[in-house]
Amino acid sequence: MGIEIERKFLVRDLSAVSGLTGTRMRQGYLSVDPQRTVRVRLAGPRAYVTMKGAPSDNGASRAEYEYEVPAGDAEELLDRLALRPLIEKTRYRVSAGRLVWEIDVFTGENEGLVMAEVELPSEATAVALPDWVGEEVTGDDRYYNASLVSYPYRDWHRV
Amino acid sequence: MGIEIERKFLVRDLSAVSGLTGTRMRQGYLSVDPQRTVRVRLAGPRAYVTMKGAPSDNGASRAEYEYEVPAGDAEELLDRLALRPLIEKTRYRVSAGRLVWEIDVFTGENEGLVMAEVELPSEATAVALPDWVGEEVTGDDRYYNASLVSYPYRDWHRV
Repeated sequence: MGIEIERKFLVRDLSAVSGLTGTRMRQGYLSVDPQRTVRVRLAGPRAYVTMKGAPSDNGASRAEYEYEVPAGDAEELLDRLALRPLIEKTRYRVSAGRLVWEIDVFTGENEGLVMAEVELPSEATAVALPDWVGEEVTGDDRYYNASLVSYPYRDWHRV
Repeated sequence: MGIEIERKFLVRDLSAVSGLTGTRMRQGYLSVDPQRTVRVRLAGPRAYVTMKGAPSDNGASRAEYEYEVPAGDAEELLDRLALRPLIEKTRYRVSAGRLVWEIDVFTGENEGLVMAEVELPSEATAVALPDWVGEEVTGDDRYYNASLVSYPYRDWHRV
């Protein structure tokens, strides 16, 4: 098992990724139960099945089990088995000091949402926030990718 | 992807497995949604994550994706993430003609249930039934292992 420790923020503006080349990701879920999510992800030419356990109380840590699988299998799993809608995004990696930020620019049903995640060696690690970083949303379950299947960002603004 | 084609029967008596050595299996589910089940299985020293799609109309065929994973990961997935109860059984393999039967003797919450499955090259394959074979339950969703989590066999007889 790995333990994933990360903090998550909204992104104020796209200056951080301008000129960078990202990785297109297409992912879907076979379970969106927060106690046991099952994600299938195509990331460029590679593919993974990832299972995550319950988030810790503050939402920053989760047990995570990830296995690489053949990309052809992942395509089929996404096309045939995964819950709708799929999550589509482009991921950019940006170094800032000793930390690496992953900035996800969502498209499709979650168009308009841009989030930045930083993976940490421990929950106590101090994080210097670049100026493009906005509100922290760590532990806000609306922003879990699994939640964006059941309640996509586009629907947040409909009344 | 593989397509799993199988027929499933109750077992009349345990004569078929007497004297045989079986494999202890402990398995659990991260999704019991019949459209997308996710199973973690420990089978002796080896372990697998298996995803299955919707059963065909007659219940005999399902898309199946299986990946071997480290046994230590599977132990943790079963202990920490899987839905309760876990499924415990001993599986015996018995050859009959050109076909191989898998006979599952359940313990734990499904004690008393004994099922035999035969995997087939096509749905049209004729199956000679050994005399220990009882009622066919192919397509009866109560007998899916995933269903035995939500409604274990022991509870079938409680009023």
